[in-house]
Parts: sequence; structure tokens; C-alpha cells
Amino acid sequence: MAEEQVQKLTHFDEAGDAIMVDVSDKQVTERRAEAVGRIRVSPEAMEAVMAGTVKKGDVLGVARVAGIMAVKRTAELIPLCHLLPLDSCRIDLKEVPEKGYIEATCVVRNHGKTGVEMEALTGVSVALLTIYDMCKAIDKRMVIEEIHLAEKTGGKSGDFHF
Amino acid sequence: MAEEQVQKLTHFDEAGDAIMVDVSDKQVTERRAEAVGRIRVSPEAMEAVMAGTVKKGDVLGVARVAGIMAVKRTAELIPLCHLLPLDSCRIDLKEVPEKGYIEATCVVRNHGKTGVEMEALTGVSVALLTIYDMCKAIDKRMVIEEIHLAEKTGGKSGDFHF
Amino acid sequence: MAEEQVQKLTHFDEAGDAIMVDVSDKQVTERRAEAVGRIRVSPEAMEAVMAGTVKKGDVLGVARVAGIMAVKRTAELIPLCHLLPLDSCRIDLKEVPEKGYIEATCVVRNHGKTGVEMEALTGVSVALLTIYDMCKAIDKRMVIEEIHLAEKTGGKSGDFHF
Amino acid sequence: MAEEQVQKLTHFDEAGDAIMVDVSDKQVTERRAEAVGRIRVSPEAMEAVMAGTVKKGDVLGVARVAGIMAVKRTAELIPLCHLLPLDSCRIDLKEVPEKGYIEATCVVRNHGKTGVEMEALTGVSVALLTIYDMCKAIDKRMVIEEIHLAEKTGGKSGDFHF
Amino acid sequence: MAEEQVQKLTHFDEAGDAIMVDVSDKQVTERRAEAVGRIRVSPEAMEAVMAGTVKKGDVLGVARVAGIMAVKRTAELIPLCHLLPLDSCRIDLKEVPEKGYIEATCVVRNHGKTGVEMEALTGVSVALLTIYDMCKAIDKRMVIEEIHLAEKTGGKSGDFHF
Amino acid sequence: MAEEQVQKLTHFDEAGDAIMVDVSDKQVTERRAEAVGRIRVSPEAMEAVMAGTVKKGDVLGVARVAGIMAVKRTAELIPLCHLLPLDSCRIDLKEVPEKGYIEATCVVRNHGKTGVEMEALTGVSVALLTIYDMCKAIDKRMVIEEIHLAEKTGGKSGDFHF
Repeated sequence: MAEEQVQKLTHFDEAGDAIMVDVSDKQVTERRAEAVGRIRVSPEAMEAVMAGTVKKGDVLGVARVAGIMAVKRTAELIPLCHLLPLDSCRIDLKEVPEKGYIEATCVVRNHGKTGVEMEALTGVSVALLTIYDMCKAIDKRMVIEEIHLAEKTGGKSGDFHF
Repeated sequence: MAEEQVQKLTHFDEAGDAIMVDVSDKQVTERRAEAVGRIRVSPEAMEAVMAGTVKKGDVLGVARVAGIMAVKRTAELIPLCHLLPLDSCRIDLKEVPEKGYIEATCVVRNHGKTGVEMEALTGVSVALLTIYDMCKAIDKRMVIEEIHLAEKTGGKSGDFHF
Repeated sequence: MAEEQVQKLTHFDEAGDAIMVDVSDKQVTERRAEAVGRIRVSPEAMEAVMAGTVKKGDVLGVARVAGIMAVKRTAELIPLCHLLPLDSCRIDLKEVPEKGYIEATCVVRNHGKTGVEMEALTGVSVALLTIYDMCKAIDKRMVIEEIHLAEKTGGKSGDFHF
Repeated sequence: MAEEQVQKLTHFDEAGDAIMVDVSDKQVTERRAEAVGRIRVSPEAMEAVMAGTVKKGDVLGVARVAGIMAVKRTAELIPLCHLLPLDSCRIDLKEVPEKGYIEATCVVRNHGKTGVEMEALTGVSVALLTIYDMCKAIDKRMVIEEIHLAEKTGGKSGDFHF
Repeated sequence: MAEEQVQKLTHFDEAGDAIMVDVSDKQVTERRAEAVGRIRVSPEAMEAVMAGTVKKGDVLGVARVAGIMAVKRTAELIPLCHLLPLDSCRIDLKEVPEKGYIEATCVVRNHGKTGVEMEALTGVSVALLTIYDMCKAIDKRMVIEEIHLAEKTGGKSGDFHF
Repeated sequence: MAEEQVQKLTHFDEAGDAIMVDVSDKQVTERRAEAVGRIRVSPEAMEAVMAGTVKKGDVLGVARVAGIMAVKRTAELIPLCHLLPLDSCRIDLKEVPEKGYIEATCVVRNHGKTGVEMEALTGVSVALLTIYDMCKAIDKRMVIEEIHLAEKTGGKSGDFHF
């Protein structure tokens, strides 16, 4: 049974060697991916972030820029990802103090032969890592969690909702 | 009260502007950081990964290389991080099929004026993102979770254990 | 009044958060941008540069290569810039000894949904910075000045001449 | 006379070939460089930038992050620059509406064998280019000007003030 | 006679200055390039590599990933190369113990205005350099050799076979 | 016997997983590495290169800059390489028309815990690839060959001469 599973790992050829999947024959379609994730922070860190957003020390502003820049470099980070010119990218960061976390949502769009799931997930990850970096003097116990693909449209495999 | 919290956000100056913290006067000490995290995968994806490790299609091998390479580029991704020459880096990836996840542990060492927490966390994140990329044709519902700093030694702020 | 101005800042959404502008619906058209700028140098530095160009120590040759390579990495440097495959790039560097400066002109062409103004401006900037680097042992008072977009054609907003 | 000038171009060897200067025998000293520059903008663009800073659409916040990130990548952009771990970096951006420009100041510190002039100048350049990018929908006639080294301390060649 | 030869150097303009060739008017066609090369290793290094492939210490797996990642960054390394989104990339690494070398083959495909020869050659080069890195504790006399373009199809200049 | 060979592959741990070798306990010493290699070109390509060097179209100047820039990015290309601040780098490119090749020599120096062999080899490789790129319109049968470490001094393993 393992045999047929391995077939499904599209990033490996018949010999089991890693490859960048061939998309020569795929159609260029409009695609959109949305990923979400969050970072659990202490009340002190939350307060500092919220104070900064309103007044000074804009943690979320820096994290948003970091996330967008990382989205553009996804193919440098993820070995078998195709380089994809993108149509748009946005990252929303929302404090949810009653639950103790900050939530990141990244939406990426392109017209291409492959989708932009990895770009959206990378944007979320790097935005959250950047929040960690800026708050770690206050709280080292922050946890980055629940990063996943929320939605994806376009492409042959059809739409996906988590 | 928010006032004093903002003080603690060391990556901003008194005007609230983002800065790369000044470490001119800090001592070079030996430092070590260990971060962990995991990706929750379907039984099908787990089976494919485990088959590959044993036989062919080495998902974890590719993810490990991706993680190590990302560790070295942490300062390019995280805006206010210092560039740090590193002494060593290792990433362990372990399938835990009974719990339905693959766990990543990244240990980074350096001699420097600042620690390598962000490097370790970045290594874990990119290794897990790479697993996502290679398994996403099988399972789009994978969730990256519980990324946190497990341990840190060296530096003025003392040792830390999660 | 500030309210309506902020609307014009296309790189921010209605909440004031930075975004990479959505170009999904824009047409691919042929585009060309030309930027210029210059570096004011001392007579000694000018002489060294001119001697090198003719004979050995080709400052402008190195600066030209640096500029072209930077053009290709514009989207890595400028946070909200789209990554754009380019059709061509050239950088002309001309000594104007009677005025005491070296002038840089960068022309970039592409077929795309957004223009290449930032690429041309980045090429000029990095070429001039490279001249600074190579001449700074002779002259630390060099000034980089008058970097601007000279001309732009293609795209919905029409042609532009400075 | 040209002959002896060329000698001073330290980035070329006796054959006129570009080299990365040998700093093997130089001492590690504490160094600091400060560069400044500015971008001349229309009243409309100035108003948009100032509105954003106060309320939403933080142009200067994005430009500051872009500048700091570029400082860390100076050695990738400037061909003959040494890669230098840095101690600190800060970029100040100040609107000067009565003069019609926004001024950028970048201060970089390190302990090393070579100085950080190029890092400071690169930080100023990329911060100003980023402002250009975000305001160009309002004003295409912006001019980046007067980028120069304001001050430098540390190293064998002694202190420098413009 | 030199005069007319120089004309053929398409990466320089009439003044002899380096340029990125203008491909505005070229057709987008399907292209494929295949490059090969090899690294000559000692029997001890060969044995270690072969043991690793079968069992543990997968030198070729790491080299393959490094090569694929380098292919995507060719335009950052080769100054006058166009950035090209790629359709696929694969790198085959084969031990030929009876001849004392490991052979690398890299095949790259794209739809574009220029070919992917440089991408394929870069992939081979970096894969072989990576093998050198991992085996150099055993053998410092390894030689990388015979890197060349094996085949190229698509584009105006017609097909090529070495 | 394979068992003990695998031990020698220092870039893998006892489980066979790739690691960045731990240099925590190594001494910082002065190190130097020299690598050489060459590209075999047709008489037509040789003539074009030689004409350019003397007069215009400076192929070797561009290749030299590309090589130096690649040296600085070695740790980004070679997965398990440590990032190393360098003291100096020079690349000599010499036409040897009577033998039909252009020879590249790259010398890199640093003070560090690990050597700079990979940096020197990478510099040679990318300089030769750049020559290939600029001459490929004239000659597609060029062969990059004989890339090896010529000499290495410093470090615990002692001096090495090919």
C-alpha cells in the first residue's frame, strides 16, 4: 500500500528523487489562496502590541511588511516551489485579546499555472515570527499555532475550504 | 499603564519608530536556542511521508535542508533581527503517527552578542512549511502548530526553559 | 481634506494597512521607464574614474553591473513592489567633468500589469552607490543627487515626461 | 598624473581588476556611520504622507523597515563591499513640509575591520526609494537628492564630518 | 576582424557596455535545456556517497535540493541573465564508480522569450559544488569537470545537441 | 566497511541526517583558499573575449564582478556551509588562447572557525558560468572544466596543495 501512496507525493519522480513538478501543460488560471494562523501571547505582550498600534511602536505594521516581503520570496525558501509573479498580497493582523492571541490572515492572488497556497502560508508564518521577535523581550512563551490553508480557488483541483 | 509596557518593546525607540537594537556594549557569549513545532497531517499523508523516508521520496530530508538554509537567512526575513554568523544548526524531524503529527526540533548555536531564538524558530517554521508543500497534493488540511522556543541558554537574560 | 489624500495612497487599504496593490484586472501592456540621477565627485575622484575607464580600474563597468543586478532584485528591496520579469535593462554612466558629476541613466522595459519605474530608479541608485563605494577612499564628500523618473510609457495612467 | 590617481582606487589591483580589498591586517574597532538624504515631494504627496503617519497609511513606517532590511543586505548589492555583522541600525524619517521634502537619516554601528558608510548610504537610498514607490500614484515628479555621508567615526582613516 | 566579433557579443551595446539583452520582440515559446557535468572523486569519497545513498547520509539528496534551489536563483548570480519563471526542473545525480565520478544532469523547461541554458548549467554547478562540500573532509582533490550544455530545444536559434 | 566511511561524512549526524557541522569549539585562525578552473571556448569566442578586454565589451570584467558577488553568497547556495565574513576576495581571469581556454583563479581569505574552500570554488564556478552566458550566442559548445581547490592554508587540518 505504501507503494501507491508514494505515487501521490508529486514532488518526487519514479526513482524517489525530489523534482520541481512539471507544469508545462497546465493552464494559466486566476487563483487565490487564503491562509490563517495565530500567535498566543501573554497579557503583557498583548497590551504592549495594542498600545503600539494605537500610539507608537507599531508591531503589527512591521510584521505586515515582513510578511508581504516573505510572500515574494517563497520560492527561495521552499525548495520545490515554483517562482510565481503575483497579482496581489495582503496580510491582516488582528488582536483578539479576549482569547489571548493575534491572528494573521494572508490572501494572495495570481494568474498562473500553479497556486499560491505556499505563498499565503509563508506570509502568515513570517508575519507571526516577526511578532515573536518584537515581543520576545516581554514574553518568551508565545506559541505560533493553527497555521493552515483556509481557502483556495482556481486551478484544476477545484476550490477548497478548510 | 500601556505607557510602561511600550517601553518594553525593545525594537522601538522613544518615538515609537522601529530600530535594530544596539548591541554595541553587549558581551559575546556562547548561546544556544532550541525551538520546536509540528505539523498535523492526515493518515494518508503520514503514510506517504513514512514510506518515503524508508524507501524513496524523502520528504523529511528535503524539509531538513530547507530549514537549515532558512536558518541562515533569518536576518533577511525578520526585519529587526541582527545578522549572526552561526556555529551550528541541526533540525530533527520525527514522525509521531500515533498522534498524527510530524515534529520538528531545531537547535542553533553561536558565539555572539544576541541570541539565536529567531533562527531556531525560523528553521522549524520553514521545515514545516516545506513538509506542507510536499504533502499538499494528498492533504490540504494539514495544520502547523505549537511552534515555540523550548530552551535557550547564554546571554545576559539567563537561561530559559518553556 | 487629509481624508481624501489618504485614499490616493494606493499601497494602503481602507484600514490604513500596507498592501501589495491588486493588479488582477489590469492589462498586460508594453512598458518602459527611464530614470536618471547623478553623483557629484571631487576633481580627484573624477580623474581617477576617467583614467580607469580608459585604461584600467573600470569603476563604471562595475557600477553598471551592480545596477543591472539590483534592477532584477527591486521587488526584494521595495516592500510593496510586484516581482516583474523584465524584457531589458540598460544603464548608461557618463562622466561630465566640467560639471563635476557622473550621470546615471537606467532604462527598463517589460510587458506586464505594472510599470517598471521602481526598477529604473533602483538601478540608478545602486549604480551611484557603487561609484561612491569605489571612490570613497579618495573622496568622502560625494553627493548622490537628482534621482528622478525621466520618462515612462505604457500602462493605463498614460505617458509621463519629467 | 592619471597614473597615480588610479593607485588610489583601492578596489582595483595593480592590473586594474576589481577586487574586494584585503582587510586581514586591519584592527577590529568600533565604528559608526551616519548618512542623510531626502526626497522632494509635491504638497499633495506631503499631505498624504503626513496624514498617514498620524492616522493611517504609514508610509514612513514601511520605508523605515525597508531601509533597515536593505542595510543588512548592502554586501549583496554593492559588489566590492565586505559582509559585516552590525551592532545597530536606525533610520529616522522626518517630514519638512515648509521645505517640501522628507529627510532620511540612517545611523549604523559595528565592531569590524571596515566601516559601515555604505550600509548607512544604502539604508537612506532604499528608504527614500520606498517613499517614492508609495507616493508615485500621487506624484511622479519626486526627486531623491543630497544623499551623502554626514559623519563617520572609528577606523584608521580617522573621523569624518561632512 | 576583432571588430565584427565584438558585434556578436550580444550582452554589450555598441559602446561596449554590458546590457541585459532586449527581448521585447521575441516570441514566447516552449523551451528546454539540459546540462551535464561531473565531479571526479576518490574511491573513499565514492564509497561514502554510495553508502549514504543506500542507507544514511544522503549526499546526493542534499545536492539535488541545492541544485534545484540554485536554478531558481540563476538571474541573481549571472549578471545579465533574465529572470524567468520556470515550468519544471529536475536534477539527476548518478554515481559511476567504475569511472570514478558522479554525474549531474539538470533539465529545465519554461515558456518564455529566452532559453534556460544558464539555469540548467547553474543547477549542475551548484549540485556538484554541494557534493564537494559534503565530501571535502574525505577528499580535497575532487575535480568538477565537463560542465556543458547537452541539449537545447525551442527558441529562434533552433535546436542544439552537443 | 561502508559503515566507517559514512562516519567521515561530517555533514551528517549519527542518524544520517544532514547537519551544519558544529564549530563552537574550533579556534578562529587566519585562513586562505585558492581555487582554479577554466572554460574551454571556440577560437571565435576567444577572439571576441580578447577583443572586448582590450577595447570594449569587457566579458572578463563582468565575470569577475559576478564571481566576487557569488563568493559572498556561498552560504546561501551550499546548504550546509557556514556564513563567513571574509577578509578579501580576488578573482583572476586569464585568456590562454594557445590552449583554447580562459582560466579562473579565486583567492579568498578570512579569519574564522572554518575555511573558505567553498567560497573560492563558488567564485570560480560563477565567474566561468558568467563567461558562458556572455559568449553563448557565439559558441554553445563551451565546456567548464578542471574546477578544483589549488591550495588551502590555516585551520586544524593543515595546509593543502593540489
